[in-house]
Amino acid sequence: MNRRRRVYEGKAKVLYEGPEPGTLIQHFKDDTTAFDNTKHELIDGKGVLNNRISEYIFTRLNDIGVPTHFIRSLNMREQLVREVEIIPIEVVVRNVAAGSIAKRLGIEEGTPLPRSIIEFYYKADELHDPMVSEEHITAFGWATPQEIDDIMALALRINDFLTGLFLGVGIRLVDFKVEFGRLYEGDMMRIVLADEISPDSCRLWDIATQDKLDKDRFRRDLGGLVEAYQEVARRLGILFENDPKKRSGPTLVKS
Amino acid sequence: MNRRRRVYEGKAKVLYEGPEPGTLIQHFKDDTTAFDNTKHELIDGKGVLNNRISEYIFTRLNDIGVPTHFIRSLNMREQLVREVEIIPIEVVVRNVAAGSIAKRLGIEEGTPLPRSIIEFYYKADELHDPMVSEEHITAFGWATPQEIDDIMALALRINDFLTGLFLGVGIRLVDFKVEFGRLYEGDMMRIVLADEISPDSCRLWDIATQDKLDKDRFRRDLGGLVEAYQEVARRLGILFENDPKKRSGPTLVKS
Ligand SMILES: Nc1ncnc2c1ncn2[C@@H]1O[C@H](COP(=O)(O)OP(=O)(O)OP(=O)(O)O)[C@@H](O)[C@H]1O
Ligand SMILES: Nc1ncnc2c1ncn2[C@@H]1O[C@H](COP(=O)(O)OP(=O)(O)OP(=O)(O)O)[C@@H](O)[C@H]1O
Ligand SMILES: [Mg+2]
Ligand SMILES: [Mg+2]
Repeated sequence: MNRRRRVYEGKAKVLYEGPEPGTLIQHFKDDTTAFDNTKHELIDGKGVLNNRISEYIFTRLNDIGVPTHFIRSLNMREQLVREVEIIPIEVVVRNVAAGSIAKRLGIEEGTPLPRSIIEFYYKADELHDPMVSEEHITAFGWATPQEIDDIMALALRINDFLTGLFLGVGIRLVDFKVEFGRLYEGDMMRIVLADEISPDSCRLWDIATQDKLDKDRFRRDLGGLVEAYQEVARRLGILFENDPKKRSGPTLVKS
Repeated sequence: MNRRRRVYEGKAKVLYEGPEPGTLIQHFKDDTTAFDNTKHELIDGKGVLNNRISEYIFTRLNDIGVPTHFIRSLNMREQLVREVEIIPIEVVVRNVAAGSIAKRLGIEEGTPLPRSIIEFYYKADELHDPMVSEEHITAFGWATPQEIDDIMALALRINDFLTGLFLGVGIRLVDFKVEFGRLYEGDMMRIVLADEISPDSCRLWDIATQDKLDKDRFRRDLGGLVEAYQEVARRLGILFENDPKKRSGPTLVKS
């Protein structure tokens, strides 16, 4: 365990070299950060929950034909993924105004958007991840027009699926952030979903109570973050309990 | 003169009701503002120069088939234009990194962009004209996808023409801002160029000396703003002099 090579350490995750070439181990830490890393805390158990939720969502997305980097779960905090060439763009899909769009465009938080809106942010910490448009992305060669089309189509499919999944368990999917990468297989290159999908990267509101079940609990000092993430996992039917038979949530396809 | 109705007073211009229905008088003031109006000064003669330069550019654009709101010059500060329904988007075309894009994307000012980039800003003073993308524009209905296509095509034609025009007189067109509007003619609606094109709305750098010949002289307290605008007008061959025969610059088509 100690001798494996650390490829990258980010704010919330560590990437280690995987057991086979072209694979990585994605390790979920308890570190919780916001506002460009100016706010930072260790929240015991968060990494385990995010790993569990993310692996569940990626598996279900794979079931419906959304290609992802996910290979298999390794342990409570780690998953094996395919190494990809990350496209340096954070792709945000919004269904309801919250956070930065509410502020930038003067829309009251909680207002449903006229339709789902896809936003792009350039991944550059030192520039504070500025919002960019297709014009910037293609002009600077961060992705090609064809890749942007693929990414937008995948982002909308993910949004449809997650909106339904969360609605089914009484949760409103307000918005979420995803990352995509290029996966090379011989002569072929495919765009696949990478990174994670978890309450760290989504806004999730309880439909009955409007309670926030996501990282805004940390950003806004609301407390109860682990309890909220546990609630998400419980509703998805994937909370680790003492009973190991309870470890899997509902599936769409037979495995 | 005093009895005409003022339709709108902006930071740099006043719009009066025109002599016929569907027309407006666009009056260029000497007011010079920057940074969301926090910086404000009266600069004697600026309005006259902008009116002159803008009417010249709009006429030449019309000559090459770019539809504009411009009808005719009225006097030193005023021009008759068609009233349009302004699309609430400022369209910025950039050839060289300067100003906000240099800062947002961490590019040194003066770096040529890999290709011309079109940006959109939502016209809303109270929100400080936030940058938006096609996604926001179409989702909120500020313009249709077809209108955005028309606007982008016109913006690129304007950029090609102005790049050439200014290059011919030793000036580098770094970037510029334009506004478009909907012109209704019976059952028909056309997108036309509106507002102004002047050193207030362009970045213009002297190719030989790199001197700024635009509103950055005001924003950056460089002084000599009127002299710079005069230099632009002089090079375009349209500076008002004592000799009235010198009042027209070169034209492409016979009028
Ligand atoms: N399959 C993959 N192959 C290669 N890199 C990946 C893959 N999946 C995710 N990554 C990258 O691994 C890193 C995960 O770490 P983490 O999320 O903690 O980073 P971060 O602090 O958010 O910083 P940043 O995302 O800005 O690099 C991210 O940089 C992400 O883009
Ligand atoms: N042909 C036209 N028909 C109607 N409105 C026009 C036309 N051309 C320009 N306008 C509008 O007239 C106003 C010109 O005033 P000015 O440029 O001083 O405004 P401003 O202070 O820049 O504020 P803003 O552009 O945000 O309204 C602008 O609002 C512009 O959109
Ligand atoms: Mg990350
Ligand atoms: Mg204006």
